[in-house]
Parts: sequence; C-alpha cells; structure tokens
Amino acid sequence: MNKIITVGREFGSGGRELGRRLSEILGFAYYDREIIEEIAKRTSLSAQYIQHIAEQKPVIPFPIHTGRTFWAVIPDYNQNVQQEQHSIIREMASKSSCVIVGRCADYILRDENPFRLFVYSDMQSKLARCRKNESADYEAGASLTDKELTKRIEHIDKSRADYYNFYTGQKWGSRENYDLCINTGRYSDFKALAEAVAKIYSC
Amino acid sequence: MNKIITVGREFGSGGRELGRRLSEILGFAYYDREIIEEIAKRTSLSAQYIQHIAEQKPVIPFPIHTGRTFWAVIPDYNQNVQQEQHSIIREMASKSSCVIVGRCADYILRDENPFRLFVYSDMQSKLARCRKNESADYEAGASLTDKELTKRIEHIDKSRADYYNFYTGQKWGSRENYDLCINTGRYSDFKALAEAVAKIYSC
Repeated sequence: MNKIITVGREFGSGGRELGRRLSEILGFAYYDREIIEEIAKRTSLSAQYIQHIAEQKPVIPFPIHTGRTFWAVIPDYNQNVQQEQHSIIREMASKSSCVIVGRCADYILRDENPFRLFVYSDMQSKLARCRKNESADYEAGASLTDKELTKRIEHIDKSRADYYNFYTGQKWGSRENYDLCINTGRYSDFKALAEAVAKIYSC
Repeated sequence: MNKIITVGREFGSGGRELGRRLSEILGFAYYDREIIEEIAKRTSLSAQYIQHIAEQKPVIPFPIHTGRTFWAVIPDYNQNVQQEQHSIIREMASKSSCVIVGRCADYILRDENPFRLFVYSDMQSKLARCRKNESADYEAGASLTDKELTKRIEHIDKSRADYYNFYTGQKWGSRENYDLCINTGRYSDFKALAEAVAKIYSC
C-alpha cells in the first residue's frame, strides 16, 4: 500500500519547502502545483484561474430559501474544479507513495491513513520568510509594508481555513485533524528539520 | 543558559512518558509530581490535596458585584498553592536544563524561550493506554466501562484546559502556543518516538 503524507500549512511558514524536502528524503513523489496544472489540462480553465479558486470556499451567488430551509447552490465551474481536484488527488495517491500539499488531501484520503502534517509559525517568521522568498515563490511584492504583508498573509490563511472548513466539516489547523503540527519559527535549517520530521514519520 | 522543554498533554496520551524519555535522552532533569511534593513540603497542605487543586481553575466562592464591576475573590489556599508552584517552577528552571510536565510551565517560563511540546491523541488510543497503565499511573479503575472512562478522561482534560486558559489567557492545546504538537495515537514505541522528538528539538 502506498504511503501518503499530507501537508497543511500557513502561508509563509515553509510548509511547501518542508514537504518537498520530506519527499526527497523519503523518495516519495511530491504534488503541489502539479495538481493545478493537471486540472487545467482536464478542463478548459486556465491554471491561473484554477489557482485562484482551487483553495477558496465557493462564493454562493444564489442562496435559496424554501420555508425555513436554506439551499446553497454552488456554481458549476467551482464544482467541476473541486471534483477534478478530488479525482486527481486520489489518482496521485494510488500511483505511488507521495507528499501532497494542501487542498484538503488529508480529508480526501482519510481512508488511506495518511500521515497528516500541519506547518505553521509566528507572524514575524512568516514576514521574514516571505521577504526572503519574494522573488521566487511568494511574489509578496517588495513594495508592501509589513502591515500590508501581514494583512495579505492573514487573508490567504483565512481563505485556506474557510475552504478547508467548508469542504471537510473539520477545523483547519486544529490539532485533532493532524498527526504532527510543527511551528517552524525556531528553525532556519529546513534540511535538518525535514530529516527529523522524516524520523518521526518513520517511527 | 539552561534549556527548558515544557510538556502540555491530554490525559492518557502518554505525554508524561514522552517527557520522561526525552529528559533521559537529553540528560535533562525531569519534573512532574516532584513539583507537588515540593509544594507539600513548603505548605501545610497534603500532597494529595495539592494534586487535587494544582491543575484546577479555582472555584470562586465569593463573587462580589460593585455597581457594574465583578470581583472574583480567589481563595487564599489556592493562591498560595499557585504562588508556590510558580516559584518552584522558576527555581527548577534556573537550576539546570529540564523537562517540566504541565502546570502552565510554558507560560510561566515564557521569557526563557522554552521548547513547548503538546502531546495528544484520539480517544481510542487514550482508552487503550489508560487500560494498559491502570495499575500504575492512571488508576483508571478496571471497573469503569469505556463510556465512563471516556467521560473521566474528558473531565480531566476539561479541568486542565480551564486551568490553563484561566491562568495564562491563552488556549490550551491550540497550536500557536506550542512549538510541536504530536499525536501519539499512531505510535507504540515511545522510545523511538522520544528519540525522534529529541532530534527535532536539537535541530
């Protein structure tokens, strides 16, 4: 049976880097943006647009009230992306042992007994990490003040939480939904940290 | 400067065992019930009585209303125990590197940059652990049904949470107050687990 590690993460906490290093150490496949690219291939939507909605709680344009009952009509485009995302995550997990970042993979693959990692840190560390990586992954914008960047980080994490809570009925970042929650604020050497996490995983 | 590891833990999750093994691996002092015994020495109260109130939010028998203001009068015996507990925890941390279990040590020693561990697990694992250890530490009572034992575990954790939340103003078991939260439900070999946690600590 394939082994699966899922990584939930606060924006700027280094969850992606930790997940990637973990996959390298363990010789597992690594899936993150690959999921977006695969959805784009299978739908007529652009990768950029999918990136925008793939970890967002759907905006419900037509709430319907019937007597005392509230019906939420989730738009088709959003449902399609979510369905593709579910299928792709299941396919990836069935292919080989892997690390999957975000996208409720811990919940989608709950019957496969994944090792569920959650990565977080304090705001100061997240700001520093975003500043350091802004030219690469984070596109944080050198022009943003600390206050603006804090607001942006909080907004992204709020979206991730809303999305996770909406689709899983669980609480994002709450310990009971994970096997290991790690605060990366103390660490600068992510290589050593990933090795130590791999050791916990392999216990 | 002494190194400090604090261990918050759900009842039955093996936090004490993990803390003790961690102290052995790292060559740190280990404090848990020693704190109770030291308070008993310094006060005229029995260790059993102190054990009962040392991790309990105080019962406030005399709430006083003055106009719109509410005054909570915390009983003297409880204040004394809490003050002694704070002093002893500070003394222990100043003596040598150590692992301290429970008792808001993470908050009391927050200026010493402790490594803050939180240990938890699912109810099934906690029941199994309590059953296995009932003759030793847990005194769970072989006569309790699973339902009764679940209720007892929930009650103890509720007390711990109330106590922690009352004295720290923080939320017990919520990730932002810890450096590492570990779900022990997957593990049976606590020796290997403690070695892996020590590796994360030492990164």
